Amino acid sequence: MYRTHTCGELRISDVEKIVTLSGWVQRSRKMGGMTFVDVRDRYGITQLVFNQDMNTDLCDKANKLGREWVIQATGTVLARSNKNTNLPTGEIELMVDELNIINAAETPPFTIEDETDGGDDIRMKYRYLDLRRGSVRRNLELRHKITMAVRQYLDKQNFIEVETPILIGSTPEGARDFVVPSRMNPGEFYALPQSPQLFKQLLMVAGFDRYFQIAKCFRDEDLRADRQPEFTQIDCEMSFVEQEDVLLNFEGMAKYLFKEIKNIDFEGDFVRMTWADAMKNYGSDKPDLRFGMTFVELKDLTAGGDFIVFDSADYVAAICATGCASYTRKQLDELTDFVKRPQIGAKGLVYVRCEADGSFKSSVDKFYTQDHLKTWAEACNAKPGDLILILCGDEMKTQKALCELRLEMGSRLGLRDKNVFAPLWVIDFPMFEWDEESQRYFAMHHPFTSPKPEDIPLLESNPGAVRANAYDMVINGVELGGGSIRIFDSKLQSKAFDIMGFTRERAESQFGFLMNAFKFGAPPHGGLAFGLDRFVSMLAGLDSIRDCMAFPKNNSGRDVMCDAPSRIDNAQLEELYLELKQPNK
Amino acid sequence: MYRTHTCGELRISDVEKIVTLSGWVQRSRKMGGMTFVDVRDRYGITQLVFNQDMNTDLCDKANKLGREWVIQATGTVLARSNKNTNLPTGEIELMVDELNIINAAETPPFTIEDETDGGDDIRMKYRYLDLRRGSVRRNLELRHKITMAVRQYLDKQNFIEVETPILIGSTPEGARDFVVPSRMNPGEFYALPQSPQLFKQLLMVAGFDRYFQIAKCFRDEDLRADRQPEFTQIDCEMSFVEQEDVLLNFEGMAKYLFKEIKNIDFEGDFVRMTWADAMKNYGSDKPDLRFGMTFVELKDLTAGGDFIVFDSADYVAAICATGCASYTRKQLDELTDFVKRPQIGAKGLVYVRCEADGSFKSSVDKFYTQDHLKTWAEACNAKPGDLILILCGDEMKTQKALCELRLEMGSRLGLRDKNVFAPLWVIDFPMFEWDEESQRYFAMHHPFTSPKPEDIPLLESNPGAVRANAYDMVINGVELGGGSIRIFDSKLQSKAFDIMGFTRERAESQFGFLMNAFKFGAPPHGGLAFGLDRFVSMLAGLDSIRDCMAFPKNNSGRDVMCDAPSRIDNAQLEELYLELKQPNK
Repeated sequence: MYRTHTCGELRISDVEKIVTLSGWVQRSRKMGGMTFVDVRDRYGITQLVFNQDMNTDLCDKANKLGREWVIQATGTVLARSNKNTNLPTGEIELMVDELNIINAAETPPFTIEDETDGGDDIRMKYRYLDLRRGSVRRNLELRHKITMAVRQYLDKQNFIEVETPILIGSTPEGARDFVVPSRMNPGEFYALPQSPQLFKQLLMVAGFDRYFQIAKCFRDEDLRADRQPEFTQIDCEMSFVEQEDVLLNFEGMAKYLFKEIKNIDFEGDFVRMTWADAMKNYGSDKPDLRFGMTFVELKDLTAGGDFIVFDSADYVAAICATGCASYTRKQLDELTDFVKRPQIGAKGLVYVRCEADGSFKSSVDKFYTQDHLKTWAEACNAKPGDLILILCGDEMKTQKALCELRLEMGSRLGLRDKNVFAPLWVIDFPMFEWDEESQRYFAMHHPFTSPKPEDIPLLESNPGAVRANAYDMVINGVELGGGSIRIFDSKLQSKAFDIMGFTRERAESQFGFLMNAFKFGAPPHGGLAFGLDRFVSMLAGLDSIRDCMAFPKNNSGRDVMCDAPSRIDNAQLEELYLELKQPNK
Repeated sequence: MYRTHTCGELRISDVEKIVTLSGWVQRSRKMGGMTFVDVRDRYGITQLVFNQDMNTDLCDKANKLGREWVIQATGTVLARSNKNTNLPTGEIELMVDELNIINAAETPPFTIEDETDGGDDIRMKYRYLDLRRGSVRRNLELRHKITMAVRQYLDKQNFIEVETPILIGSTPEGARDFVVPSRMNPGEFYALPQSPQLFKQLLMVAGFDRYFQIAKCFRDEDLRADRQPEFTQIDCEMSFVEQEDVLLNFEGMAKYLFKEIKNIDFEGDFVRMTWADAMKNYGSDKPDLRFGMTFVELKDLTAGGDFIVFDSADYVAAICATGCASYTRKQLDELTDFVKRPQIGAKGLVYVRCEADGSFKSSVDKFYTQDHLKTWAEACNAKPGDLILILCGDEMKTQKALCELRLEMGSRLGLRDKNVFAPLWVIDFPMFEWDEESQRYFAMHHPFTSPKPEDIPLLESNPGAVRANAYDMVINGVELGGGSIRIFDSKLQSKAFDIMGFTRERAESQFGFLMNAFKFGAPPHGGLAFGLDRFVSMLAGLDSIRDCMAFPKNNSGRDVMCDAPSRIDNAQLEELYLELKQPNK
């Protein structure tokens, strides 16, 4: 037997017990004739004590232990004279009688501490050492706790978890599929699922009524920051429901998770905001509601100042940063540089300082009178001491830029506390997006999303104005999940395909088996999917999804620890009837 | 709102309530002026009633409903005069006031009943209809219940579920990997995991202590009956454990599952049987212990009868079939044909009938005296009325054939009741298997399996005799799971690689990153993996794993429902720098 207790378990009530612990050497130190060794496992740290006078050989052995050696120690639990109140085991120590070196260890390439000296690359290469750090391990423990809670909640609501296949057929619509050559079917390929969408809809046709799955999904996309080629969804679908049923059920799940995991109670219902309002007031379909600073449109109020920049802009809008009138020239220049960054793309930034004496100081002073500026301040509800920041230009682009500026100001003003959570539902998304390049409509959510019944007449006359029964759950500016009520009527589906420019043949080849299935009695259904990685990283207070995954890949899709992907044998290529082509460099 | 209740919910206490149900038309029938429609959902079936006299139009509408149409009905719950005691809802019916046809349905290609008229192929093509059948759906509900219970048990034992990647590096040892070309790393491939083995061992090095995962695994093998290219394991690993700790923990899990799912209590510990005993007594490393009929070796007792077949055989062994002395010539011929089938491969079958009068009648009468035959009967503990069946030849092959004959006799005698469960652990597997073709030893379990400490000296002198710390859980002749205590000492690992003929370079290239990880402080560890599909199918009483999977593939690895795998675009091949070769027909 390697241990009687874990390293996180012993308390003052265990004093005088003879116990055996196993674990890793966290650190050791010599003080006078005593040697102290902290031994660590997943459950905690316990201090071992060796006395030079009482047992010289044993103490010498202890003095030779290195960091991260695996040891086993047997001895008597003693009360510590010098208690460590930071550790649950801090009231006791183990006076060791027997020390067994299970495995020596090379010196790790970075320190195994919550705050490490290891950079990102080396941490990923030695991920198995990185995972020893409490700050990383706790994220994965949290992930486990969250998935357990999700399953508990959904099981109680009569959802059943069904595993859908990973080797499926390729669906060209949407992001790029990873493909898997089939040896038994030469020249043919499986695809890895971007989501279990089609299968969960088939399960509704099959009468499963309430389905969920914590499902691996795959997208072969160029990886921006915080994207992974494989990621995990909490995927759900329900039959005989309307949008309200879905929202209530999953708002319940989110509340349950926040209560179970963070002991946070949300009072009342989540805010519901239409997509149109979210864009108008926050310039984003995932607004961060931890703070206000909503957009104020100033186009009308800026007319007549002879300021050509505003006059020629489609859209002029402001945010009001409370108490920032004291911003220096340098700070204002920083903000200007911020909005002019290519990712944000504004041409410039106009400010109005609301001075303590009620006067205004602005970068467009020469075009506008004090009275003029006053009307802006009133529109923005700005008080003396506040700073008004104005962007202008094309409506969509300016909204996006102003959204970034708002978030930046929120961060600067400390309004984005990681321990505050502001959830909302964004609803009434547009059904279609117009794509300039291909001159056609695309489904904003996915091609089976249903229109709002009252907008069905618009399908013919003005497809761009049709709102969908689609919804996203957003918390703190992060889209945690989203979904829709699906079309289950084949005539309506045909019309939607027509609008998206699908020929009957193309619709048939891509979605034929689902459309066939619908002929045999499809129930009304809808659902949603949460990004588990994002949900965990939000609850863990992380900035990236990487550290809530055990073995993430880097931005080139590589696992640097096990060096994947890699070359394969020619014999294996031949079995698959494949040949490699040289990329043109 | 589509429904106030499900179709499985209404009871006599609901009489007089006005309710709305939604579901599928199971069947309808006209009797006099009444029309009865059974409406079905996942939760049950409720009878709807329409009265021709009271509401002619509504009744006419009901008369037009077809099988599997999706409907919504509102009405009043009535007590049934003619109760159906087979249905939980059989005491009530719904007198309908309002009927809404949600979706009509084409006639399904087979009947949606527990016993269907649909063959395997059509059921798979229309799997979404097949899944509507209660007998199929219940298997998936059971699967959900089992995975919930597994997670509950392991969570309580401090295991944490960690998701390991699906896109990993290829490991040439073992079965064939499915590979995934990487667009971002031209010419390189990911592999899909055959199991999370390396990752779970890395998690032990990372100090995770107790890991589990209900994990998708992939093997590109030629599919025999009851193999699937993707399957699911309950994958587990523990640190600071010996074999005993692992066996006790997972015996506990199995007992918990049988109690939760089948309300079966197992008294005492599971039988433990060495691999050597299992082979000797049952000719199998997965013996079915629901019945005895153990092998009796007769080589010594058959000497001196001048029967050349026995005399020239390495091995002669019998089983005793209780009460089968009355088997006719025809029945004995059937058994002879059975053992001579190429899959079984025996050359012939010798029988001894133990007659009621104490005499013996045998196919080898002319070679052996009654006294001779009596010694065999005594060795077999055969009583008058019993039948002794004897095979001979090469030891391994004959054991295998006799094992099949034993199972056949068990089936014929009704000793293999699906509701009886006989679990055991098979332990002390050989560490290595000799492969004649490549003239080298292979790891019987996997290359990291540790030898039994007392057999370590044999590693040099007689590797074939070394027993491993490896174990299988077997129930009713099915291997449900297996695992081992791993080697964590790098010197011992090198020696094992040497025996298996791995060069240092080959070991390095295949397992380098795990061996490197072990240098940084590897704890003693071990674990096992259960085949979830097999576990579910055993608890569901199924003969195949297919019907406990939602969307299985056929024997060519095809999903006939969504027609995967399939051709992909040339554009996509080009992006992957791949070219197809023509197979030589």
